[in-house]
Amino acid sequence: MKSYIDMTAAEREAEYAAAAEKYAALKAGGKALDMSRGKPNAAQLDLTMPMLALDPASVTRTAKGTDARNYGDLAGVEECRALFAGLLGVEAKNVIVGGQSSLELMYGAITKALLLGVYGGSRPWGQQGALKFLCPVPGYDRHFAICQQFGIEMINVPLGPEGPDMDMVKKLVESDPQVKGIWCVPKYSNPSGFTYSDETVRAFAALKPAADDFRIFWDNAYAVHCFDGQDDKLLNIFDACREAGSEDMVYEFASTSKITFAGGGVAVMAASEANVKFLLKQLGIQTIGYDKVNQLRHVKFFGSPEGILAHMQKHAAIVKPKFDCVLENLDAEIAPRGIASWHRPHGGYFVAYEGMPGTATRCVQLCKEAGLVLTGAGAPYPYGKDPEDKTIRIAPTYPDVAELAAAMELFCVAARMAALEALGVKA
Amino acid sequence: MKSYIDMTAAEREAEYAAAAEKYAALKAGGKALDMSRGKPNAAQLDLTMPMLALDPASVTRTAKGTDARNYGDLAGVEECRALFAGLLGVEAKNVIVGGQSSLELMYGAITKALLLGVYGGSRPWGQQGALKFLCPVPGYDRHFAICQQFGIEMINVPLGPEGPDMDMVKKLVESDPQVKGIWCVPKYSNPSGFTYSDETVRAFAALKPAADDFRIFWDNAYAVHCFDGQDDKLLNIFDACREAGSEDMVYEFASTSKITFAGGGVAVMAASEANVKFLLKQLGIQTIGYDKVNQLRHVKFFGSPEGILAHMQKHAAIVKPKFDCVLENLDAEIAPRGIASWHRPHGGYFVAYEGMPGTATRCVQLCKEAGLVLTGAGAPYPYGKDPEDKTIRIAPTYPDVAELAAAMELFCVAARMAALEALGVKA
Repeated sequence: MKSYIDMTAAEREAEYAAAAEKYAALKAGGKALDMSRGKPNAAQLDLTMPMLALDPASVTRTAKGTDARNYGDLAGVEECRALFAGLLGVEAKNVIVGGQSSLELMYGAITKALLLGVYGGSRPWGQQGALKFLCPVPGYDRHFAICQQFGIEMINVPLGPEGPDMDMVKKLVESDPQVKGIWCVPKYSNPSGFTYSDETVRAFAALKPAADDFRIFWDNAYAVHCFDGQDDKLLNIFDACREAGSEDMVYEFASTSKITFAGGGVAVMAASEANVKFLLKQLGIQTIGYDKVNQLRHVKFFGSPEGILAHMQKHAAIVKPKFDCVLENLDAEIAPRGIASWHRPHGGYFVAYEGMPGTATRCVQLCKEAGLVLTGAGAPYPYGKDPEDKTIRIAPTYPDVAELAAAMELFCVAARMAALEALGVKA
Repeated sequence: MKSYIDMTAAEREAEYAAAAEKYAALKAGGKALDMSRGKPNAAQLDLTMPMLALDPASVTRTAKGTDARNYGDLAGVEECRALFAGLLGVEAKNVIVGGQSSLELMYGAITKALLLGVYGGSRPWGQQGALKFLCPVPGYDRHFAICQQFGIEMINVPLGPEGPDMDMVKKLVESDPQVKGIWCVPKYSNPSGFTYSDETVRAFAALKPAADDFRIFWDNAYAVHCFDGQDDKLLNIFDACREAGSEDMVYEFASTSKITFAGGGVAVMAASEANVKFLLKQLGIQTIGYDKVNQLRHVKFFGSPEGILAHMQKHAAIVKPKFDCVLENLDAEIAPRGIASWHRPHGGYFVAYEGMPGTATRCVQLCKEAGLVLTGAGAPYPYGKDPEDKTIRIAPTYPDVAELAAAMELFCVAARMAALEALGVKA
């Protein structure tokens, strides 16, 4: 099959007619499909049902003898801190287990930085005029929404297979004290599926920020979310920072939203001892403590970091066929036509479809009109503005494989039509 | 027995010698006792153990058919909103079920007011210079700590059996646009145990704040916490506000921390429809949703608001003997000596001991030196400063009755010594 670029105008017209005919047929089928959000499927959630059947008496008493049902233990139950410390390669004293949403922990870190300041900072962020955050793109829309809510200017930084453009990051972070943070999903990035290289992680650790209160928001949301047995290796940023003497620069986040329950897991934050001490002092005004019974449920259910990894193999068995379905469709229908590229991720929750410039909005619109909801075009960029209008985030996990196959069939046809229109074919 | 006031100097000396002898004996007993925090006892927490033994399948599916284990339902599971709406006398649409800590909901409401503003307000609080909050005293230390953290000036307002001094509240709220809020524990107030009268609630509803962004923080922490069958009646402030057209002025808070688990309950906020809509828009940036599995646990465990009330009877049976113990000791040892007053609460978690001016710090110190930890003197006042150094918060629930009896014996002796010292007896 010829690439669309190499086709003559007449060939493109013919190709469009064929695609449009197929599109009309699929649209007439009247299916309601959804590939919009990175949500686990019910079969994945079922894997954790035994956690809800634990002996009640086994989740009420902490190892040190305190009553998990009562107030206290602001930083989380010690054995739960240790569990996630093991998973993230830090020590229990570096971990705060807080609530159930890592997004909320990030939000809390930013509101406190704005109102109260961070450890080592001379003033609250909010007293320093116009603030900036760096945003590797494409990235996670909910990160960007936090900055937008608080009027923090976002600066796009290109993200490639090795991670963000670190020359650009370094230049901006080291020259501009108004740059207060950067959003990173360092492993199986949302949505591209890239994992930062060791060199990139070391470049982060080596940053010498112009601001005395700059923080790297290291959202390690997919730390254990490999689905094909070939797990990407992410260098432990705290190890790199220890060498560079920059441990206070990093806030790491993770959660079990896509390990146990998205609506009932636990969320964690990891940071240097100085940061944790400082943050707990702030946090002690906000709450007396989080849900420790649920923390103990997680400890009893998993037992160890290895227990979490074993559990994730069960997720992988459910998730992998869905990514295979997405990639097989793209390989068969899009690759030969030369109109897009994508990374084949080994884990995470997304495939980022990088189409021809000016096609993402149209493709999403065509899908929507035929019954398939996708993440809005532009969503993976600050302010919802994809400068080239080319990235579409595909989220394969929530639908079942049959639905996904139908969705991808439609998606590929819509993507072809959008590309041909961008190449001059009239709709 | 003579009141200390009526005693001669010699009588006081003799009384002091007797008290000091008893104190020394109790101190020598070497007991470690704690009446410092309003924490439920293990026997109270045990009442909720059946909630942890619910069939797992019964807490995963919401009434409308969504999966509680997955993302979504930002405002909470509908039937959980309805449960607490019934309890608070509002509608489900007026309730947000958020996390597990009502303190955190209050903190969140204040941080968002500071950074983003409230519904109907022209600007964020944080852009309006020096801010003030009214603090009925004695009150709840954790409320005051939030204001202190954010540098919000706190103004003491006397709290009596009918509630706060509403003339003073009205004058301050209606004349000064920098007054942005007031902290209220309207039922079984912490620590006095007073319940605001209908007239007081109506006076709140009738306020015409000088600020366009003033909020009443109505922390209804002890709404269902009567322990002696003679429940105080608190007028529903939203009913009063509806008549006055001031529904947007109130944020109400409650939680099950002292109903189910302090470390694993649910927290709720009730507000006008306009406020809820506005707050949910802000909240949607902070989190995707709270722990809905735990929300469903509460729904299944209680079934209805009546189910909560029935459950609270079981708490009452545990709590009442403890309050009886405190009051019997005060009646026997303190009342005849005329050195303090206290309200006999029908519910809540505290007895406020109002001693002679200048005695609270000394009494707490004497107790501490003999092994009894009390809430710090001054804690029930902003900045930890009791202007008259007279209020001590007694928290009877956590110790068992035998410990409590020992603690009260010591407390009464220490209180007598502190009073006599204030009357001129040398320690």
